[in-house]
Amino acid sequence: MTADHRRLRVALLGAGAVGSQVAALLLQHGDELADRAGATLDLVGIAVRDVDAPRDADLPRDLLTTDADELIVSADIVIELMGGIEPAKTQLLQAINAGADVVTANKALLATHGPELFEAADRVGAEVYYEAAAAGAIPIIRPLRDSLAGDRVRRIMGIVNGTTNYILDRMDLEGAEFADVLAEAQALGYAEADPTADVEGFDAAQKAAILASLAFHTAVPLDAVHREGITSIDKGMIETARRAGFVIKLLAVCERLTDPENGVESISVRVYPALVSREHPLASVHGANNAVFVEAEAAGDLMFYGAGAGGVQTASAVLGDVVSAARRHIAGGVGVGESTHANLPLAPVGHVVTRYQITLEVDDRPGVLAIVAGLLSDGGVSIATVEQTVHGGGVAHLVIGTHRAQEQNLSDTVDRLAASDVVERVVSVLRVEGD
Amino acid sequence: MTADHRRLRVALLGAGAVGSQVAALLLQHGDELADRAGATLDLVGIAVRDVDAPRDADLPRDLLTTDADELIVSADIVIELMGGIEPAKTQLLQAINAGADVVTANKALLATHGPELFEAADRVGAEVYYEAAAAGAIPIIRPLRDSLAGDRVRRIMGIVNGTTNYILDRMDLEGAEFADVLAEAQALGYAEADPTADVEGFDAAQKAAILASLAFHTAVPLDAVHREGITSIDKGMIETARRAGFVIKLLAVCERLTDPENGVESISVRVYPALVSREHPLASVHGANNAVFVEAEAAGDLMFYGAGAGGVQTASAVLGDVVSAARRHIAGGVGVGESTHANLPLAPVGHVVTRYQITLEVDDRPGVLAIVAGLLSDGGVSIATVEQTVHGGGVAHLVIGTHRAQEQNLSDTVDRLAASDVVERVVSVLRVEGD
Repeated sequence: MTADHRRLRVALLGAGAVGSQVAALLLQHGDELADRAGATLDLVGIAVRDVDAPRDADLPRDLLTTDADELIVSADIVIELMGGIEPAKTQLLQAINAGADVVTANKALLATHGPELFEAADRVGAEVYYEAAAAGAIPIIRPLRDSLAGDRVRRIMGIVNGTTNYILDRMDLEGAEFADVLAEAQALGYAEADPTADVEGFDAAQKAAILASLAFHTAVPLDAVHREGITSIDKGMIETARRAGFVIKLLAVCERLTDPENGVESISVRVYPALVSREHPLASVHGANNAVFVEAEAAGDLMFYGAGAGGVQTASAVLGDVVSAARRHIAGGVGVGESTHANLPLAPVGHVVTRYQITLEVDDRPGVLAIVAGLLSDGGVSIATVEQTVHGGGVAHLVIGTHRAQEQNLSDTVDRLAASDVVERVVSVLRVEGD
Repeated sequence: MTADHRRLRVALLGAGAVGSQVAALLLQHGDELADRAGATLDLVGIAVRDVDAPRDADLPRDLLTTDADELIVSADIVIELMGGIEPAKTQLLQAINAGADVVTANKALLATHGPELFEAADRVGAEVYYEAAAAGAIPIIRPLRDSLAGDRVRRIMGIVNGTTNYILDRMDLEGAEFADVLAEAQALGYAEADPTADVEGFDAAQKAAILASLAFHTAVPLDAVHREGITSIDKGMIETARRAGFVIKLLAVCERLTDPENGVESISVRVYPALVSREHPLASVHGANNAVFVEAEAAGDLMFYGAGAGGVQTASAVLGDVVSAARRHIAGGVGVGESTHANLPLAPVGHVVTRYQITLEVDDRPGVLAIVAGLLSDGGVSIATVEQTVHGGGVAHLVIGTHRAQEQNLSDTVDRLAASDVVERVVSVLRVEGD
């Protein structure tokens, strides 16, 4: 393969933390990228809102422009790193309709308007690349789309949000409280001033929708993702988890369910803090790192680990996509596009079957355990383990590990426990994932 | 994308552990594969040496044939799972020259005759797929070739041989001796009756050559891979490693070296048992699992983990390649082929710079440490830590952790230590990798 027999025009929309790094790498490593892409990649311009704003990298002033439209119409490849829905969506559609291949790291856009973009690209024979949208620098799109194309994914469990993993990991290592670690993470720049998107699981839910769409060949709308954040996790819950051999992780779970009665398949996509065995590979994912654990029918268990965020790390994934797009331009042919042929129905969270850990504050008197056990049994929830700790003042804690139960049964049973005279308070209900 | 508008003829060469599974999955999941590939994949025949030999899967008798040549000439995609150099090489070249895309899991063939196959494919516009050859079921080829195409790989450290990882892990967990664990692994089928290819590092060296070629865009011949096996590792060495916070793993290391004087780059590819910090993600790779740890300039640290071998696991990687080959047939265009544009020189192992742990049996008398320290210092090797343990009978063990030193200096120095009057025996010299 020889370089320089072709030149491709690359337009960049956005010059924030990731965009600046992408521009800098495109300019610094031009020769090497040309060798790999089979064409010289000419960065023809960078659209920004304000050409005078401070940037993370030192970019040539003459590349900056506020006129995105003009850039887009003349480009072979358009890289969108603005984030947000608009004007990203309009500009990407404009680029696609002008015949460009597009590269984006915009998970919010893909999770809400992905099908629209993919359809537009299909119509004109363009392609949408989005490796950086699912798990930052971790290569997960190509493994799911290509390497596992001959296999069937059973389940994905992803630690796909670095901020929440950092917080939970610090709480686990130091016995610290959520609010204290969050404040420190904000001071260090690991968490935003408004941490809602991370700690309430919105960011993870967007990534879960993207991963599930790809893994199950089904368009998964963002509002089909069940979502719970980590704000209710306290150090007591982490300590209780530890005593039972678990660590608490915010997981994005994408699972293929099979109805035992008729064999009909559906998929469940959910984000919540869950108990993971300390022996599980996901338990050793520390700090702000991410990992995607994939269970496939033939391949078995796979894990993809790395930095989930960061400007230069994410830029690596974006540039990989740019090289792929360039190769496709050179080689001709059409890409594989989005694959939604399976089109599986989405199951409500109530259909999920897993194990649970229920922690109850109960009256410390004889007969209470029998009453609690009876309520669980009536609800179809079978007990695997019970630990009782007396806290004084006539109050005890019961930590109950259940066998596998359906979420709906479990949830109804917990309601009945909460209403029982002997239960003072339902301290926590956590799912166990990964076993 | 609609299926069934095209049919592709798929020929399979070999029906051993992997081949049987590939055939079974092609037949069982035909509809799903057709949806993903954009074409119906017709398995037109399976070439075997003996149609009556027992198989792992129940394959339709009428597909089996001993006439590989006839199968090959009419196929769109040829899957080679025979292993060995011949007749695999001749038949793959025959398939390529007949215009077929080929899929192979044959690491021995790729590591020795890869360039020949890639050149033949380039000439006719065909493509060679080999995801299963590098790390079994773990998707590593596409991440290296595509996802990291815009990045620069600094170093790869791979646990790419399941048998040796199983043996070393058992020795570490149980304090067992090599020979005992090997015998048990053979009884369980984790190790071959003749374990040479695994325990002497030949299998890992083949995979290292394939990974390094891909990561550094350079053709790496197998004989440029420095190779040491694990047969000299005993439980004393594992215990010494443990006390210093390490675990011993057989690593395939592919590293970009930069000459500090002139900035000239070269690459080092080596396989040997090395000390890995117990905090490193590779330390938690247990049993027969494999993992490939990649350090890239922009993406940072990535790890890819999964089953390195096994019939059905490897079949997953093969089928992913088959779907990719089919998509390329449908979409037209040419593939990316092998990329050797960087063509970096290969550095001898003497140029490698790393830390070492040297264990010496010395006379237990005053002044010995000063003599040993003097010899190290004269050799340009700087000491980081020393631990001395007295073993009785006038003999002590010195466990010396060095700072980073060049292998050649280290090796010359160890020769001088071995010749010294105060050193009874050089017990072991192990490199420290991953820090």
